[in-house]
Amino acid sequence: MTVHSKTNHCKIVDCTVRDGGLVNNWDFSVEFVQDLYESLNASGVEYMEVGYKNSPKLLKSEGTEGPWRFLDDEFLRKVIQKKNTKLSALVDVGRVDEADVLLRSDSMLDLIRVACYARDTAKAIELGTLFHERGYETTINIMALSGVMDNELNESLAMINDSPIDVVYIVDSFGSLDPDDIRFLVEKFRRSLKNKRLGVHTHNNLQLAFANTLTAAQLGVELLDASVYGMGRAAGNTPTELLLAKLTRPEYSLRPVLGMIEKHMIKLREKEEWGYLIPDMITGTLDEHPRSAMGWRASAKRDLFTEFYDKMTTPEVFHGN
Amino acid sequence: MTVHSKTNHCKIVDCTVRDGGLVNNWDFSVEFVQDLYESLNASGVEYMEVGYKNSPKLLKSEGTEGPWRFLDDEFLRKVIQKKNTKLSALVDVGRVDEADVLLRSDSMLDLIRVACYARDTAKAIELGTLFHERGYETTINIMALSGVMDNELNESLAMINDSPIDVVYIVDSFGSLDPDDIRFLVEKFRRSLKNKRLGVHTHNNLQLAFANTLTAAQLGVELLDASVYGMGRAAGNTPTELLLAKLTRPEYSLRPVLGMIEKHMIKLREKEEWGYLIPDMITGTLDEHPRSAMGWRASAKRDLFTEFYDKMTTPEVFHGN
Repeated sequence: MTVHSKTNHCKIVDCTVRDGGLVNNWDFSVEFVQDLYESLNASGVEYMEVGYKNSPKLLKSEGTEGPWRFLDDEFLRKVIQKKNTKLSALVDVGRVDEADVLLRSDSMLDLIRVACYARDTAKAIELGTLFHERGYETTINIMALSGVMDNELNESLAMINDSPIDVVYIVDSFGSLDPDDIRFLVEKFRRSLKNKRLGVHTHNNLQLAFANTLTAAQLGVELLDASVYGMGRAAGNTPTELLLAKLTRPEYSLRPVLGMIEKHMIKLREKEEWGYLIPDMITGTLDEHPRSAMGWRASAKRDLFTEFYDKMTTPEVFHGN
Repeated sequence: MTVHSKTNHCKIVDCTVRDGGLVNNWDFSVEFVQDLYESLNASGVEYMEVGYKNSPKLLKSEGTEGPWRFLDDEFLRKVIQKKNTKLSALVDVGRVDEADVLLRSDSMLDLIRVACYARDTAKAIELGTLFHERGYETTINIMALSGVMDNELNESLAMINDSPIDVVYIVDSFGSLDPDDIRFLVEKFRRSLKNKRLGVHTHNNLQLAFANTLTAAQLGVELLDASVYGMGRAAGNTPTELLLAKLTRPEYSLRPVLGMIEKHMIKLREKEEWGYLIPDMITGTLDEHPRSAMGWRASAKRDLFTEFYDKMTTPEVFHGN
């Protein structure tokens, strides 16, 4: 019930379409995305990440994915009537065609975020710098932080500190971090990134996504990733509705996003699977990528948890390392 | 991923049958309770709360509830083969017949916990003292702390401090507290209860049950309530499996409880409802008892969240105060 007066610097980045698209192959109707935009705007959410801006030429397209996988400005313009909520897109290093990215003044997008592993930091900076020069707000989201050695991470952060990138993200890709880990990382990032603002992206494998995000918020982290009803890959993300309920900015309103859940998310959750599931809890505990859990859930053995646990904890059988 | 070396003082109290019984009217089969006991014992869980020890004479019995609602020692003896895991029962002030409670040396039970509102502290102490004199470990669980004024709570704690009760619980009945609130309460309880050990019981309305329990554990709180797969009233409790996964005591093992989830909990969750549900999130946010949310979920309007939100935030219509 704490009045979170220390979180008035925060902004919410709703990732429902982008991260949720990893669940349903971006099969969101135009009506869904329009309703989501309107509800986020009415709730006071600052950013909506409307998809990936990767190139179908550089990322093997299956031809079946929804349009939010390879965002096109002309299409976006037809779909969304821009109001206060800004639009964001994510790109992966090596999968974006620079020619696809217009000047911000000609684009519907405001923010472009570059996701990378620590080893690709130089490429991410190059890409982010290009977007910066084209007028966008920019972030670099270093994924899978829990598996990066400290010397490598220090080097990455030092490089980013000298770049024009606006915001650097702490990303808990495997949903394995707890509030103490977040505290450690925020302090570390602060020390190494004197000139940068910070962001956080969490996963809910251990039911700690929201607590981790709150911890980061109270330590001054500015951009908070979330998704409506927690929709996101595997265990999903921090629910947008919980941030709206808990952060006490007068601009925020919970009700419009409740309307979005009522109209779309309950039905969608019956068709698609995300949230607290035991195989995802197991990979989170083991600090592993959720792909093995997702594969298990897609198999006939989906509810055989002890067998999955045994495989995951018997390295020579399952991991091959 | 933190190694929780600071939590080696902790003990888990599994409340699946007792708090989960509020979901399914204690309709657990003998096989379910036996499997639960065996799995908790094999996982190293220290206590299993096997039900309520209220008297059917003093609490209006519907005649339909399972045997775990009104525990009988003779019945328990037939059902459970005691091993390491101790047995606990909860009683409500004013609903227990003292004559029903044997000497501990003649009983299957080890721990008796007295739940009360702050205003009933004197009665709770009287009852707890009686159990203490009959040889049991005892706790007092002060419910609905978020709605108690500070002067009243101070008086309650001072009285308990002078009693022979072993452990005092911080109970987040409405699932409205966050880690900062828990920190505040643990520090307050510590100051007022110099001679007592502490316990914590959380609810998951805001997806903070586990984070709140971890926070308490790290601050030295000893007894941690949980339930398998989070089964408990409305939004449910801290999942036992998450505590087993996260607390790094060598005695704990996750696998047996995963087996319990696999064998019983998935099917049970398909039949009965608990966990993160929007009406319970709304009552948690508003610091209200979940009964209105549970009533809404039992009605035809169960998925109309904005209507529920409007009613709950229009006091004269719904609350009558």
